[in-house]
Amino acid sequence: MRKAVVLLSGGLDSATTLYYAKSKGYKCHCLIFEYGQRHKKEVKSAKAVARQAGCKSQVIKINLPWKGSSLLDKKLELPKDYELRVTDYGLRKAIPSTYVPARNIIFLSFALSYAEAIGAEKIFIGANAVDYSGYPDCRPEFFRAFEKVVKVGTRAGSRFSVLGSRLNIEAPLIKKSKKEIVRLAKRLKAPLELTWSCYEGGSRPCGVCDSCALRAKGFRAAGLEDPLYGS
Amino acid sequence: MRKAVVLLSGGLDSATTLYYAKSKGYKCHCLIFEYGQRHKKEVKSAKAVARQAGCKSQVIKINLPWKGSSLLDKKLELPKDYELRVTDYGLRKAIPSTYVPARNIIFLSFALSYAEAIGAEKIFIGANAVDYSGYPDCRPEFFRAFEKVVKVGTRAGSRFSVLGSRLNIEAPLIKKSKKEIVRLAKRLKAPLELTWSCYEGGSRPCGVCDSCALRAKGFRAAGLEDPLYGS
Repeated sequence: MRKAVVLLSGGLDSATTLYYAKSKGYKCHCLIFEYGQRHKKEVKSAKAVARQAGCKSQVIKINLPWKGSSLLDKKLELPKDYELRVTDYGLRKAIPSTYVPARNIIFLSFALSYAEAIGAEKIFIGANAVDYSGYPDCRPEFFRAFEKVVKVGTRAGSRFSVLGSRLNIEAPLIKKSKKEIVRLAKRLKAPLELTWSCYEGGSRPCGVCDSCALRAKGFRAAGLEDPLYGS
Repeated sequence: MRKAVVLLSGGLDSATTLYYAKSKGYKCHCLIFEYGQRHKKEVKSAKAVARQAGCKSQVIKINLPWKGSSLLDKKLELPKDYELRVTDYGLRKAIPSTYVPARNIIFLSFALSYAEAIGAEKIFIGANAVDYSGYPDCRPEFFRAFEKVVKVGTRAGSRFSVLGSRLNIEAPLIKKSKKEIVRLAKRLKAPLELTWSCYEGGSRPCGVCDSCALRAKGFRAAGLEDPLYGS
């Protein structure tokens, strides 16, 4: 069975991505990161999603002592004006304060190491660039650039590999809207009731942070009810 | 004063790189990794080199639970036939067992995060591709590919940055032979007596692992004595 490493945050997008990878016949190894995020609660969700999917998961603890992001530092305020900050094209005018420098590059580099070590041929990541977080490391051009790094910087990707360049990165949601993602999740029977998106990480979703706003937009447009808000 | 992040392993090359960066007028912030390497001793050396250079240093602990490298697993034997394995061009015929999947990609991604957070404009790394470790992530084409990732995947490098694309990676030793590196270290007064290269990490260098072999080659060719072997 072909192996894949799936980056799993515990949110809507990564859970959908895991179920998508499974539906394509991959044996999925989930990688979950505890990196000082204020919504550490998502780690528990990610573990629950992996368990529900019947997949192995590894939690990697990372210390980023330099902070400077509102996602790492509870003393900083989270942005709450998502609708005001998007342009007509759904693109952000500026990178929000929740941006964690080089986060997806760090996550992908660990995924790469894991994938090489176990002989996986794919790394799945749930990034999307339509209903868009505003992070530069969620855009198609970033993934294209990172694939070149895989090709020249690893055994699995390089000319030294007996298997040729076999390892690559797939971001199946990259061009999907949140509405399409919610519908795909439903179709794949992803356990959305186990996911967690809210940056605040409280007992219930705050409903106003960017992550809640994007999730709500998706459910609303799909005409479905978010199980996290169910009675 | 312009800031730089310097990846410091504690060996000859990275110590020389730190002193090179200092000589170019950078305020250097050293990043040291404890990643389960069998020669964990190099972490102590790295700290001592940073201290001697008067530079701040951060130790990042990383857990790579997947192993599979003789540099991470003491049960595996280290390669000891360096001269046999190099071609006429100093290039390896195969990647040695000490290769750690995606190691430099992981190190650079943390350096990138740190550099963005503190507003550094350079990341220095002591990789070299002449008297060559055989690792794909030490080659010029790898660094070129990674720079593209910086450009499209970070705030500091992207079009969103108010400062423009200011952050880049420099590998000043990339085209130098070990002889030239030893001579440069001498000229820059890098404290080679504090460095550590041997993969075994014993009380004295083993003298036969690849790292010892390369270091010895450099000192021999430069006509200098390695202070680690002094009486």
